[in-house]
Order: sequence, then structure tokens, then C-alpha cells
Amino acid sequence: MYKNEKIQPYPTTISLRPENQECPIYFIDSWLTPTNLFFVRNHFEYPPINECSFILPIKGDVKKPFVVTYRDLLKMPSKTIICPLECSGNKRKLFDEGIFGTQWGEGAISQAEWKGVPLYNLLKMADPKSTAKNVVFEGHDQGTIEGIEGIHHFARSLSVEQALDQDIIVAYQMNGKPIPVEHGYPLRLIAPKWYAMASVKWLKCIKVIDHDFDGYYQAIDYYYYPNRNNDRDRVPVTYMKVNSIIQYPLDFSTLDKGTYMIRGIAWTGKGTIDKVQISTNGGKTWSDAKIRRNQNMPLGWVAWWKEWKADKTGQYTIMARAYDTCGRAQPLKVEWNRLGYGYNGITNRKIKIV
Amino acid sequence: MYKNEKIQPYPTTISLRPENQECPIYFIDSWLTPTNLFFVRNHFEYPPINECSFILPIKGDVKKPFVVTYRDLLKMPSKTIICPLECSGNKRKLFDEGIFGTQWGEGAISQAEWKGVPLYNLLKMADPKSTAKNVVFEGHDQGTIEGIEGIHHFARSLSVEQALDQDIIVAYQMNGKPIPVEHGYPLRLIAPKWYAMASVKWLKCIKVIDHDFDGYYQAIDYYYYPNRNNDRDRVPVTYMKVNSIIQYPLDFSTLDKGTYMIRGIAWTGKGTIDKVQISTNGGKTWSDAKIRRNQNMPLGWVAWWKEWKADKTGQYTIMARAYDTCGRAQPLKVEWNRLGYGYNGITNRKIKIV
Repeated sequence: MYKNEKIQPYPTTISLRPENQECPIYFIDSWLTPTNLFFVRNHFEYPPINECSFILPIKGDVKKPFVVTYRDLLKMPSKTIICPLECSGNKRKLFDEGIFGTQWGEGAISQAEWKGVPLYNLLKMADPKSTAKNVVFEGHDQGTIEGIEGIHHFARSLSVEQALDQDIIVAYQMNGKPIPVEHGYPLRLIAPKWYAMASVKWLKCIKVIDHDFDGYYQAIDYYYYPNRNNDRDRVPVTYMKVNSIIQYPLDFSTLDKGTYMIRGIAWTGKGTIDKVQISTNGGKTWSDAKIRRNQNMPLGWVAWWKEWKADKTGQYTIMARAYDTCGRAQPLKVEWNRLGYGYNGITNRKIKIV
Repeated sequence: MYKNEKIQPYPTTISLRPENQECPIYFIDSWLTPTNLFFVRNHFEYPPINECSFILPIKGDVKKPFVVTYRDLLKMPSKTIICPLECSGNKRKLFDEGIFGTQWGEGAISQAEWKGVPLYNLLKMADPKSTAKNVVFEGHDQGTIEGIEGIHHFARSLSVEQALDQDIIVAYQMNGKPIPVEHGYPLRLIAPKWYAMASVKWLKCIKVIDHDFDGYYQAIDYYYYPNRNNDRDRVPVTYMKVNSIIQYPLDFSTLDKGTYMIRGIAWTGKGTIDKVQISTNGGKTWSDAKIRRNQNMPLGWVAWWKEWKADKTGQYTIMARAYDTCGRAQPLKVEWNRLGYGYNGITNRKIKIV
């Protein structure tokens, strides 16, 4: 009787009310994150699931508003998407200066297979009017927000053009099964390439509007605020930045002299990952990692690895830097922003060879 | 159908080979840590459990060496102990400067009820010779150590005097059930007040010796090494320091104006907790927290809480400082030590009131 067969990673509990659980990302070596380890991010308590949850109105500034049911959706032509979802607050804890907000480490990212109906098809059926400007996605989840009056639903919008991206789906399956409650049962918008606040859970309605959406999570939250004391020059949080993590070795590990595979994953919200460079001397010199792509997952993250011959004792700083095909690279220094979004600084690991 | 009834904390996975899991200590509000959330600390892979696991020799420098079986132990007079076990590397991550070793946050501490046979009784039966000096406790777990030749068992010693402490037991139950494999099945030494490296898991034998024990984990590891480049002035890691954590509120929380209960736990390895002081202004002023002791758990941790009227917006630094009856207090500044043991600095939480 060994215990080995039962050794497993767990989600890392960040908060319980609302529930926020981080993915144990260093220990995920599969293309798809097991559903029970997929990071969980909530703004509010879980909404009740009842008959309203299974009805999705598509309404507003459209010529043919309609209501589609969960059962209708199951029968419509479907699309399957595999993509990383990354919370825009991922790695918030890594900002040099602490930033208020959910204290995510490096695991507010996971990758699953999502199946559903292309949003494009639903919007075409509804036929937006020529005055249509934005599409609002409202979730069933609601509650109070610190420092703000009233009760708010979680809701986000995309421009009509953004919403017509053929990869966006109204999902009803995650990793081959109905979506679990914590991930948006029964219906969740999945907007690949966007930070995950765009992938609205417990989808309640889709509303086309002829103006800008002024919901809290669209108009106030989810901006990069570059200034400490005013809101000038703010920029909305949209697509994922180019980013990576080192999964092995773990930070502050001690290892015997030997040859090791440094490995991790990399992802981006624009284009695809072009290359990943590794340094084992704190950034003095860099060399290319090998990259493995899964051909069935054009939107997915890539796995990378680099052999490291550690034949001298001493302390090393290992770094990884990802580049994408849009010419973006992880920055040497991350720009601070007041709400702590979009951290994509070069990650490093301190290693001692003995 | 709400999801609320299923919301639960998980252990935080620090490493898998060997398995090290942290207790989600901020979310533990019971006197006894549920067994599945009790922190797991291993130096090696899990040992096999076989017939040898159920036999415990007590030998060496004694007049009446004998072998006791697991079944024998179950029939002997027993003692039940409730005490915190804290890894001496707990909070290693909190040292300002990163320190190599398992990167524990604040959760390498948990409290359980342990039932077993007093070590005192077993030693008296064996009757140590007058030359007896130390008692070695060897575990079945073994493996290689980075930078060190050979295969090593985990083993620790106590002086004969320390070993005769009537609170030390050879435990066979944890929280009312057989000890799970990851916590030392079938037999584990439980040495209250000591940092948890003394509570040897998978107990293989007890050997009385007439000299100092030179095992790696006694003679090299588990020392406070005050110097970076030499071993001078090292001091062995023994009893737990006075320590505490703030369980609520969580670090970098944003809260509405209102009245809150700041709360946490405190513990010590010498005497008992005398008082816990709280500051809500970064240490400028302090006031006493209320303390709740469980009369059935004289060795257990205490719960503490302090009402906080947060009626002005702004940023606050909340701090907690525990004192014990031996005149010890958590230090304002923790002394660095090379292996990162015994961190007991005053914990703080940054809170924003809006």
C-alpha cells in the first residue's frame, strides 16, 4: 500500500464568498485542464438555477428578436472551441507593489474544450438593425459591489463587429459534459482570445444596443488605469496579452547537478505564439525553447521546453519570455496599473544547484 | 439549485513529488482541522506499508528492549492529545528575501486530535540505562537528499529528558480514525510544542543511544543558521515560537465602511498564549483582542477576535501580535536564517475601506 496513486493537485482557495479558486497550474501537464482543477472566478454568490436559466432572449436593437431555449441550442449546429481562459487579474500578486483585488498567483488560467452554438449564427438570426452598436451579455449572477450603490448584475458588452467573431460561442458543454454550476451552468458565453471577463457565465440575455454599455464591469471596472489618483488615459481590458509561465522547476527549488527539462506553457490573445526564449542566467543570454502545438487546438496554449545542463553548483535565475506573431513580447518591466490587470512580466525561478 | 452547499476550501498544492500540501488555514474555523485539509509535509516518496509497518522495536541503550505491535499498542492505556503541529518552515515565503526550500505560506500548521500510547510508558518499560542520552525516532520514509551522498531515512532524536515529557505519544489515531497514510499510518510520534519535524511519521523504531544522533535531519538540517557563508552560531530548531495568523480579513481586501470582526488564531510551544494585540494603523497603536480557549485543549491554539469599526475610507494596515506566558512576543523584525525556519514575524493585512 503506497499512497502514490492518490497524490493529486488541488485548486488553491483564494476566497470562499464569493468562491475564487486558482488552478494548480504548475501541475497541469495535459492540453485540457481537468474540470475540477479549472480556475473558478466569481464576483458574487452563485445564482439560483431555475427555469429562467434555460431561456435565452436575444433582443434589443434587432429586427427579429427571439427567445432560444437550452433545448433549442442543443439541436442547433454547434462548434467546439479549445482555448485558454485567463482572468485579467491573473498574476496580480506578482506586481512589485501589492494591489487591492483578488490575490491571484499564476493560476487564474486554464484550458478546456467548450461546445456550443456560434454567437454569429444567433446574431444573424436576430438581424441587428443598422443602428446597432454593441451587444450586451448579462449573467444571472448579481450582488453588491464595495463602494457602489445598489445591486448589479455581472454584464459585459462587445461591439457588434467583435461579437461577430466566428469563434465566439454560447457554450453548453465543458470538456464533454454539461458546464458545472461554478463555470456557468447551463449557458456561458465563450469569447476566445479575450481575457475571461468577456466569457459571461450563467448567460441570462443577449441585448443589442445602439449606444455604449454603461454597466459597472464595462464602464468602470476592467480598465487599465495608469494613474494612482485619477482616471485619465485609461484603456479598456480586452484581448489577452502575450504571456507564459514556467511550470518546472518550481521557484526556490534545490536540485542536484544534472540535466533538467525546463518547461511551461505560453499563450496570447492576438495571433499565435511565435517563440519562447529561455534564460538560465538571469536574462544575460537567451535561447529558443522547443515549442509543441496541438494541431487540433489552433486557439490553444502551446507547451514549451528547454534542456538545461546544470553542471556547476550555484544559484541560477531561470526566465521565460514569450513572443507572438503580432510582434508582441513579454515586457522586461510590467507597467503598473491601479486595478492590477494584465500582468505579463517575464516570469523567473530562483534555483540552487548543489 | 444553488452551488453554495458545495463551496469548500482545498489544500494548497506546494509540490507533488514529494507531496507537500498546505492547509487552507484562513478558511478553518473549527478547533480541529478536518483531516483532508491538514497540511501534508513529506521529505520523500511515501513508504510502502507492509507487515514491518506494524511492528515497533524499542531498543538500544535500554535494559529491557522489546518489540511492540500495532495491535499491542491499541490495547495499552492511551492518551489523547490535541495540539497544533506546525512545520518549522511555515511562512518561509514571508521572509523578505526569498529562501530556498519548500515555499510555505501561512498554512503549514493544522490542529488535530491524536490518540496513542504515552512514549513515557514505553520508555519506562524498556528502562533506559544510566548511560542513555538520546532517543532516536526513525521513520520508514527514505530517499536521496540534494547535495548529499547516499540514501537516508527520516529520523529525529530527543534527549531522554525531552522524550519523557508525558504529553508525547506514539499515535495510532488522528481525529478519531486510523492515521491516513499521508500523515504517518499506522504509527506516528506526536511531540506537542515541538515544531512538527519532531513528530516522526511511519514510525519504524525507537532507539535509545548513549551519544548524540548524527542523522542528517538532526545534525545538519533543522538548525537556525544565522550566517550566509558559514555554520557558526547555529542553534537547533526545537519548540515552536510564539506565533499567530490573521484569518479575516484577507490581505488586499476592499471592504465597505462598517464594523468587522478581525479574527485569527495564535499558538506557542512554550507556556500558553497570554494575549494577542491588534493594530489597525500599521503598528502605531495596539489594543488587546478577545481570546477564546478550549478548556479541553490545554495544548491547543487559541482563537482571537477584535471588533473593528471602519468608518472612514482609506487604506489600513492591520497587524496581530501574540504574546506567551514565557514572556515571548512575535518580533517586529524576524531574524533571517539560511534555511528559513521559525518565521514568526507580526503578520499584517492591507485593507481598503471604500
